[in-house]
Amino acid sequence: MEVDKKEEIASDSSEQVVNPWEVSAKDGGKIDYDKLIDQFGCQRLDESLIDRVERLTSRQPHVFLRRGVFFAHRDFDLVLDAYERGDKFYLYTGRGPSSEALHLGHLIPFMFTKYLQEAFKVPLVIQLTDDEKCMWKNLSVEESQRLARENAKDIIACGFDVTKTFIFSDFDYVGGAFYKNMVKVAKCVTLNKAMGIFGFSGEDHIGKLSFPPVQAVPSFPSSFPHLFPGKDKLRCLIPCAIDQDPYFRMTRDVAPRLGYSKPALIESSFFPALQASGENGKMSASDPNSAIYVTDTAKDIKNKICVNGGQDSIEKHREIGANLEVDIPVKYLSFFLEDDAELEHIKKEYGEGRMLTGEVKKRLTEVLTGMVERHRMARAAVTEEMVDAFMAVRPLPNMFE
Amino acid sequence: MEVDKKEEIASDSSEQVVNPWEVSAKDGGKIDYDKLIDQFGCQRLDESLIDRVERLTSRQPHVFLRRGVFFAHRDFDLVLDAYERGDKFYLYTGRGPSSEALHLGHLIPFMFTKYLQEAFKVPLVIQLTDDEKCMWKNLSVEESQRLARENAKDIIACGFDVTKTFIFSDFDYVGGAFYKNMVKVAKCVTLNKAMGIFGFSGEDHIGKLSFPPVQAVPSFPSSFPHLFPGKDKLRCLIPCAIDQDPYFRMTRDVAPRLGYSKPALIESSFFPALQASGENGKMSASDPNSAIYVTDTAKDIKNKICVNGGQDSIEKHREIGANLEVDIPVKYLSFFLEDDAELEHIKKEYGEGRMLTGEVKKRLTEVLTGMVERHRMARAAVTEEMVDAFMAVRPLPNMFE
Repeated sequence: MEVDKKEEIASDSSEQVVNPWEVSAKDGGKIDYDKLIDQFGCQRLDESLIDRVERLTSRQPHVFLRRGVFFAHRDFDLVLDAYERGDKFYLYTGRGPSSEALHLGHLIPFMFTKYLQEAFKVPLVIQLTDDEKCMWKNLSVEESQRLARENAKDIIACGFDVTKTFIFSDFDYVGGAFYKNMVKVAKCVTLNKAMGIFGFSGEDHIGKLSFPPVQAVPSFPSSFPHLFPGKDKLRCLIPCAIDQDPYFRMTRDVAPRLGYSKPALIESSFFPALQASGENGKMSASDPNSAIYVTDTAKDIKNKICVNGGQDSIEKHREIGANLEVDIPVKYLSFFLEDDAELEHIKKEYGEGRMLTGEVKKRLTEVLTGMVERHRMARAAVTEEMVDAFMAVRPLPNMFE
Repeated sequence: MEVDKKEEIASDSSEQVVNPWEVSAKDGGKIDYDKLIDQFGCQRLDESLIDRVERLTSRQPHVFLRRGVFFAHRDFDLVLDAYERGDKFYLYTGRGPSSEALHLGHLIPFMFTKYLQEAFKVPLVIQLTDDEKCMWKNLSVEESQRLARENAKDIIACGFDVTKTFIFSDFDYVGGAFYKNMVKVAKCVTLNKAMGIFGFSGEDHIGKLSFPPVQAVPSFPSSFPHLFPGKDKLRCLIPCAIDQDPYFRMTRDVAPRLGYSKPALIESSFFPALQASGENGKMSASDPNSAIYVTDTAKDIKNKICVNGGQDSIEKHREIGANLEVDIPVKYLSFFLEDDAELEHIKKEYGEGRMLTGEVKKRLTEVLTGMVERHRMARAAVTEEMVDAFMAVRPLPNMFE
């Protein structure tokens, strides 16, 4: 019975579960990303594609590409083929505004999307799913909208170009062509199918069942008639964490039946929690110590970082070196330390026991404090007028230049 | 398992089934309206209420009230209590635009709603559920919208007051405060509950599951901020056929949890098909001979009416009279012949065998031809500008006068 799919998935501990609401590894271990690629049917983002990005954009690929943070894709090669022929695309990403303070994991897709926008010189739509969070987190409409606007400030602080970027809240924007596309998508997805993809159960409310089309339709340019009039065939590229893949598997399944292009995807692994040994989960907004928030002070950051790859004694550490596989600070440095040579140096010295945990922790504290401080200053400079400007329903005359 | 509710209902022939998509009587007989009132938990519209309507409006109650076409209600007495204290209300009705030509059954709620608007001097919102028909009838968005606009002309031809009436299509109007209310309603209805109320199955698409909130929210004045700013407590009265009751049972269940008033209902029985002996179903748009269309010619009408309550021979008819219980023309006359005395006369003469089938048929042909002719002329006078005027999102400054 399809209605029981959720429990079926959840109780089968031999399989890892990755969907927008649950990320759990097999038997509590690590997420097996190779297996996830097979499970989902997406493709690995290999070296040759990254080289192509470098060639096409004439700049060094983003650290998240070089280090495999964005590791999987769907049809990204086709987007590059088209781009090479002179056909532009647009970017679509989003955020569910469930909390006021964002943590570093939340910023990763936006940092990467900003790079893509600059490198490819393309427009971007950013969806704030305040309707989703109102339904899933049982927030009031007003509180969801307030959080959406607060989160928009953090997103804008990442440095997006207002002449190429449209940020919208679902509560503000759903309607018209967007709603028509929602209905078209909904017609193509049976309840059984939605239950299979998303793991809904009979006890879930119908708002949840109604939501997948809302997240699907920004993949179609006709949902934004003020941005893309007459450009119904414009390709869409979605940078996102891989837990969002179910939405877009559904979207890609439906698109050809509506005469639309399938959106392409470029997907990231999960940013590890501070306390986890390994990478078995996402950072969680519900445990403040599991994550570095953009509102944390230098002292907060210093206190939160714990080094877990070192050995019990200095003597033992000097002898066998750190276990880089489980060390969270080294993982964090590989996300955020831009200098490839320095990162390699730290990994070698730390891994071979010459560098001590205190030094690694100090360097990571510097890197994160700098990032968070820069973000805080940028966010403080975001005015209400700037938010209004990004969220205005308007044409973007120079968005492809 | 709730997912099987639909089949469960359908296979239980000992129960009559009445919902927006299916009207079937127990063992193929007549709909038992008394039992339906019990099944649904609504109230009978009794003489004392009709007398009160007459007193409050200082005019003879509409023939559909006097003859029991509108026979059931929910909280109509509370609406009258409030009206008596000087508190106005607003009317909400609607139509699913699935076909171009309307038949007389389609006009009944609108004829009655026009009377209510005039008698109580209250505003009216009319929802055209083009999104619903796009999903259920597999029409394109464009075709559903075209039908909505064509149907709007027939509705306007019923004589509504443009200074008190807002007609909207869902595809045009969903968004903003209306969408926020949709989300609020959807949060309160579990999938199991929706399956129980509406009989959806796992093979139905999620568009169907998403629709009930769309039909629910015009019951709340805050869905129309341009009409009812600051009037969030304004009562809503919904004239409709009783097959729509499931939508509003759900709405009334949810309303208090959102801090909204429950909408009141005034509900009609089904207009019988021309060929049915009795009243076991609604007229069907799929069988053109089962109904009188507003586009039928006098000749069409004459050919469609068949008299079925008469006896096999004139002699027998003179002897035992017509069977008024099954005679469709007599039923039709009781809907549309306004003169109470003439109707009583026909029923007596025909029932006692003095009036022959040919005479009854002739009189009904006159009545229907006159109605259809008047409707055709009124519709021909409806311009595109008038449609635009009724459908403009605008305040209605004198709607309560």
